[in-house]
Amino acid sequence: MQDEPKISQAVIDRLPRYLRYLGDLRDQGVERISSRDLSLLMHSTASQIRQDFNLFGGFGQQGYGYNVDHLYSEIGRILGLDKEHRLIIVGAGHLGQALANYANFEKRGFVFLGIFDRDPALSGKTVADMKVRPMEELVGFVTENDIDIAVLTIPKTAAVPVSEILVNAGIKAIWNFAHADLPVPPGIMVENVHLTDSLMHLSYSLASSAGKE
Amino acid sequence: MQDEPKISQAVIDRLPRYLRYLGDLRDQGVERISSRDLSLLMHSTASQIRQDFNLFGGFGQQGYGYNVDHLYSEIGRILGLDKEHRLIIVGAGHLGQALANYANFEKRGFVFLGIFDRDPALSGKTVADMKVRPMEELVGFVTENDIDIAVLTIPKTAAVPVSEILVNAGIKAIWNFAHADLPVPPGIMVENVHLTDSLMHLSYSLASSAGKE
Repeated sequence: MQDEPKISQAVIDRLPRYLRYLGDLRDQGVERISSRDLSLLMHSTASQIRQDFNLFGGFGQQGYGYNVDHLYSEIGRILGLDKEHRLIIVGAGHLGQALANYANFEKRGFVFLGIFDRDPALSGKTVADMKVRPMEELVGFVTENDIDIAVLTIPKTAAVPVSEILVNAGIKAIWNFAHADLPVPPGIMVENVHLTDSLMHLSYSLASSAGKE
Repeated sequence: MQDEPKISQAVIDRLPRYLRYLGDLRDQGVERISSRDLSLLMHSTASQIRQDFNLFGGFGQQGYGYNVDHLYSEIGRILGLDKEHRLIIVGAGHLGQALANYANFEKRGFVFLGIFDRDPALSGKTVADMKVRPMEELVGFVTENDIDIAVLTIPKTAAVPVSEILVNAGIKAIWNFAHADLPVPPGIMVENVHLTDSLMHLSYSLASSAGKE
């Protein structure tokens, strides 16, 4: 049984941004906001905001605006942020260390439980108050600690075999920073952050705008 | 004058992935590949590949497949990777340091020239063989060194004012890791990497798939 109505990918993609603005408003002590004021703030349209929020049963009262705190919690709940997600990082290089120190994990219900690396020189080193563990302990750790999410910050050549090991060990989702496509079985989620692709979008934009001058 | 035909955003978004696969093939010594073999490798369709490549004037000969090395260079050129882009990082925290050590910059024509932080404790510290500079030197440095791109790895509260300073100093593009929308004037590119939004996509997928069980 599904509790939520079917929501399009485009709406889901907008939810984190709504949450960000509502969180800011809440932190500023704003209690209510109209779709019009929110649309001005977000450079969006009031009708899109009303349409999106109607999908989840409204949250608002005509003429009174939306209750910021309630809307923030509801969108957070839809995004699954009210649930605990248990997470490890595989790859303790610079990026793995940066993510380990990423303060937003806990605020969003992500519990960071371990970090792994195959480099013996890193093994035992402390990152974000956590000892780096050797890869030999990976499968046992995932099983014993009921880990949901693995963050992959390893070179592309290692990414596919390591993702297979993780999936076999019971992981449900991969936050993939390795520059490779991961062929995972159905039901396993992969969220890719391909930094090199992102850089290329920038260089494309720069090159094509220079061409226009 | 523009040299390239108008290319849709969807095609541009696919180019970095083509480049990644073609680079791998080239590194493996593969000289030619058919659209069919490339489509099998990329889990795409041969007709989409032919359609995409036709937009840039083909690159291939019917029945002979595509010349991997030529195709790699051409796509790289379209993406602007044959040009030099001069880049600084603003924010020398964990993420800024990780990006400073990101080896792919140079391979893609991005020249990393400086890193800045407003924290006096970091000033003078060395990151990726480069001294962290104080923010007071930012504007002068951008102007004197003809910097095109600023990578923003600073807290969201500082992102908007710092982006305004950078734009006024002559920067053309921002690779934005700060969790804020940057209101830049027309002609300035912003490529956002919102890690928190990406994490929320994962938690949404996990929550909605758990609902289905």
